Amino acid sequence: MNLNSLKKLLVGSPLATAQARHERLGKATGLAVFASDNLSSVAYATEEILLILVLAGTAALTFAVPIGVAIGVVIAVVISSYRQTIAAYPQGASDYLVTKDNMGVYPGLTAGAALLIDYTLTVAVSVSAAVAALTSALPALYPYRVLIGVSLVGLIGFANLRGIRESARFFAVWSYLFIGAYALLTLYGFVAYAVWGLPVLPPAPHAREATETLGVFLVLRAFASGAVALTGIEAVSDGVTAFKPPEVKNAQAVLVALGLIMIALFVGLTLLASIHGIVPHVTETVVSQLSRRIFGSGLLYYFVQAISVIILALAANTAFADFPRLSYFMARDGYLPRQFASRGDRLVYSNGVIILGLASAALIAVFDGSTHALIPLYALGVFTSFTLSQTSMVRRWISRRPAGWRWRAAVSGLGAATTGLVMVIVGVTKFVGGAWIVVILGGLLIAHFASINRHYRQVAAQLSLDGFEGHPPMEHTVLVLVGDLHKGVIHALQYARMLSPSVKGVYVELDPDKTRRLEEKWIKWGMGAPLVVLSSPYRSLLHPFLEYLGQLLALGDNHMVTIVIPEFVPARWWQHLLHNQTALLIKGALLFRKNVVVTNVPYHLR
Amino acid sequence: MNLNSLKKLLVGSPLATAQARHERLGKATGLAVFASDNLSSVAYATEEILLILVLAGTAALTFAVPIGVAIGVVIAVVISSYRQTIAAYPQGASDYLVTKDNMGVYPGLTAGAALLIDYTLTVAVSVSAAVAALTSALPALYPYRVLIGVSLVGLIGFANLRGIRESARFFAVWSYLFIGAYALLTLYGFVAYAVWGLPVLPPAPHAREATETLGVFLVLRAFASGAVALTGIEAVSDGVTAFKPPEVKNAQAVLVALGLIMIALFVGLTLLASIHGIVPHVTETVVSQLSRRIFGSGLLYYFVQAISVIILALAANTAFADFPRLSYFMARDGYLPRQFASRGDRLVYSNGVIILGLASAALIAVFDGSTHALIPLYALGVFTSFTLSQTSMVRRWISRRPAGWRWRAAVSGLGAATTGLVMVIVGVTKFVGGAWIVVILGGLLIAHFASINRHYRQVAAQLSLDGFEGHPPMEHTVLVLVGDLHKGVIHALQYARMLSPSVKGVYVELDPDKTRRLEEKWIKWGMGAPLVVLSSPYRSLLHPFLEYLGQLLALGDNHMVTIVIPEFVPARWWQHLLHNQTALLIKGALLFRKNVVVTNVPYHLR
Repeated sequence: MNLNSLKKLLVGSPLATAQARHERLGKATGLAVFASDNLSSVAYATEEILLILVLAGTAALTFAVPIGVAIGVVIAVVISSYRQTIAAYPQGASDYLVTKDNMGVYPGLTAGAALLIDYTLTVAVSVSAAVAALTSALPALYPYRVLIGVSLVGLIGFANLRGIRESARFFAVWSYLFIGAYALLTLYGFVAYAVWGLPVLPPAPHAREATETLGVFLVLRAFASGAVALTGIEAVSDGVTAFKPPEVKNAQAVLVALGLIMIALFVGLTLLASIHGIVPHVTETVVSQLSRRIFGSGLLYYFVQAISVIILALAANTAFADFPRLSYFMARDGYLPRQFASRGDRLVYSNGVIILGLASAALIAVFDGSTHALIPLYALGVFTSFTLSQTSMVRRWISRRPAGWRWRAAVSGLGAATTGLVMVIVGVTKFVGGAWIVVILGGLLIAHFASINRHYRQVAAQLSLDGFEGHPPMEHTVLVLVGDLHKGVIHALQYARMLSPSVKGVYVELDPDKTRRLEEKWIKWGMGAPLVVLSSPYRSLLHPFLEYLGQLLALGDNHMVTIVIPEFVPARWWQHLLHNQTALLIKGALLFRKNVVVTNVPYHLR
Repeated sequence: MNLNSLKKLLVGSPLATAQARHERLGKATGLAVFASDNLSSVAYATEEILLILVLAGTAALTFAVPIGVAIGVVIAVVISSYRQTIAAYPQGASDYLVTKDNMGVYPGLTAGAALLIDYTLTVAVSVSAAVAALTSALPALYPYRVLIGVSLVGLIGFANLRGIRESARFFAVWSYLFIGAYALLTLYGFVAYAVWGLPVLPPAPHAREATETLGVFLVLRAFASGAVALTGIEAVSDGVTAFKPPEVKNAQAVLVALGLIMIALFVGLTLLASIHGIVPHVTETVVSQLSRRIFGSGLLYYFVQAISVIILALAANTAFADFPRLSYFMARDGYLPRQFASRGDRLVYSNGVIILGLASAALIAVFDGSTHALIPLYALGVFTSFTLSQTSMVRRWISRRPAGWRWRAAVSGLGAATTGLVMVIVGVTKFVGGAWIVVILGGLLIAHFASINRHYRQVAAQLSLDGFEGHPPMEHTVLVLVGDLHKGVIHALQYARMLSPSVKGVYVELDPDKTRRLEEKWIKWGMGAPLVVLSSPYRSLLHPFLEYLGQLLALGDNHMVTIVIPEFVPARWWQHLLHNQTALLIKGALLFRKNVVVTNVPYHLR
């Protein structure tokens, strides 16, 4: 009961099933809810491009602008394609479901594995980036980044175990403040530069020597790093049912709006970083440097940093909704352990939340809280699932041929081809840096999903009642373990007599004198049941009994043996320590023995 | 089964009860067996005297000789007194038994607590001193003293879990080598000094300034520290039954021989240390310094150190026999948990061995492996039990009045008075330094023993069949928990029908659609039993069921409810992870509930 109170305090009182599906989103709130996931990458995507380019020296940083524009184009293509997916799957179109639906199990599992990995990385990357935004403003905290990151994951995890029911309004405030702050930064940055002539400082303090030559591969790597900006786009199509009717229209509108804001902010910031010759630095983010140049180190600067921290934490929070939901779908289909499909007291798929929290906290710790170190693992998953999902849509259009199917197939096909190309670029350029981990892990996960499913199917087949004629009749012997003869044993014996007419007492002899005294008492108290005495040269209670039991079980496959263990229960729990735990020992030894049922009969002491 | 093999490998194959009491000791082997316990303190007792005296400056060290002689006198008195105890208790005279026998329960428990504490300290002090002897010869090992000490305790503990059946011959070798080596050191020391004129070096390197003035208190403190030499004397009277007949004569002869050897070695070494002006040093023991002066740093020196290590380890080993034996006696009398009274596979009271090992290892770790730091805790216990035991003997002589009872009472009385005086000196002079811990711990232990005994007596009274008329007849309902309907559930239902004619299926509804389908199937498979459907607004399986169970139990105090939980058992253990552990949850919630019996019925899958 005390444990229950603690859980209540931490996680909250249980919610009734009827309290689910309470809140539906309109366009404005929907945009706010999905903004963190989509837009938060603006806080680090530009920096990741620069971090690759700077390997070829500070001069190479100018390549950031065309790369940013290219990524903007990819975003536009993907958004057009996903608008269609939303229309086709108004009940919610997880890439896993869409792919399994149209392309079969293994592609579906591939999309599922890719997404689960990417959600985990979303948490790790977003939290690391949030901590980086924080430590840029407060450099004294930099040495504690791992501790802060892991604590933040814990905090978000706990909040999600409680269930975040006040979400929409809560999200709205921060999302619009974030969009406002970043829009102000970008616009003010351009105006200050172009109209008032904000001087561009020489990039002296962070200037670096080239360590690699600027070639096609390096540019593609920079592009692949920046492509993390696309993560989160699929979230809107996952969550169509969360919208108010007309769900499809609202979801599409939100998707397009988010895409346009994303392109504007991302390309804008990349251009400004290029204009100001920002060089990435290990203890200060690019956005922080940019904001400090444009706003100075005043209140506005700190506001940009604070809102960055918040929106990145919220992005991590969104993954805490996505991961458990996807694992619920996969568990429901029998590809993940069933436990992922059951909702906790607070209507949350608690097991998914816990696993995600642990995995992402481990990633932050292992990669030392560095966003840049995590990036090579990121985005391969999401582009794999983009490509699979859109390819599925092409197959769907072709096979169903609705009105305008050619056009639709062309849009989805362009999307699939684009993201497929990005997937290949990401896989190849980041393979050595970390994508190989994702490839191996993904393969293992897919094999694991398949084997879980095989197990469930085998169990279901063995338990199925189809064509089942009923079990053959059973025979039944009840054994009462007797160590001594007292009220508790009499109670158990009386209970055993209710179960079956064929009851036997079984006594393991350690000391012949004691046996004689017991046999005398048994005549009076044994209720006519025979007493079997087993000798034990090695003082083991267990072995002689197991041998005897083996003989009984050998009598036939339909012979059930119930073992009644008398147990007295002291008034206080610690008093258990003062009594031999023989019952527990026997129970452990017989656990899951075929045709054996072990029954403890408690006798309560005052 | 694998766990069993591991245990067999570490601890050995089980021994039959008939293999116990195999080996009896003659005078020569008896002396060897009890020598380590009695004599090993020679290796550190002189040093402890010097360590106190040196606080008053190097000049004060000369007081060691009269103190040593005084301790020698106490040894002689105690030995005379214990000779009588052996004659009076030929069946073995643990101070605990003697005191309980003659003075009642609480003095007996006091002696018991004092001895258990002292046995624990014997292990900690002897092992620390063994490690000190080792690191004196090999100073490079000094930083690892705690690790070495704890490992040594572990090693001795394991050996004792195996049972040391080859003991007597094994002990004989080392004990006689030890006596020989120390006798040689003492004799050769005197001869070298008196006859050949071994020069006495100035004690320059370790000379210390006085930090305290030499007064009566300091001399008494030094005496109290040296009094640890007496520990182990009671061991011979404990173990009378281990001797060959005539047991009493043999035991007495061994006791006296040990006492004389002890006095000779201890007083001799103390005198030599005084002659050579040995000043105690933190990284080299007094015996090591002395042996180095007398023998030089050659083979003989290393032999003395090596044999010191061995004999001290064997002294710790003796406590590993004493502690479990005393806790067996106390558990048999119902003052310690019953588990201490059961012998393990190897005829050893394993629980006593394990507790002693853990407690002494903890002491070594906490006191940083320093013999000197442990000494203030030591000896108070043994002098308390000496005093109680000999006072008991005085009472016994006076009440029984055998031939020569006046003389006997006088000898025991002198012993009691002497050890009583030492007890007071030890308690007062060491109180602040650590004896207070022993006083508090002893008090707690005594209270604990008494409360354990109270509990056992209450339980026995409540379970006793004296005047018992039999329990009233019971009513019985069997509930089968139904989550789904499959072969495993049918199996459990069939089993339940064998137990009782009044069986009910109980189903907790999470989803009304599922309920309808289940009810349809139940008509075909339910064997005519009613199906109770409980609704669960909060998706908890447990709470609605507990509520329903509460209603059933309220029907009457003689109403037993058996809860049958169908359980399918996958072919491999890890596959359990893929299934909800609802059965375990329910079992936990119903553990020890009055009038409730929980029965898992396993159905085995291939």
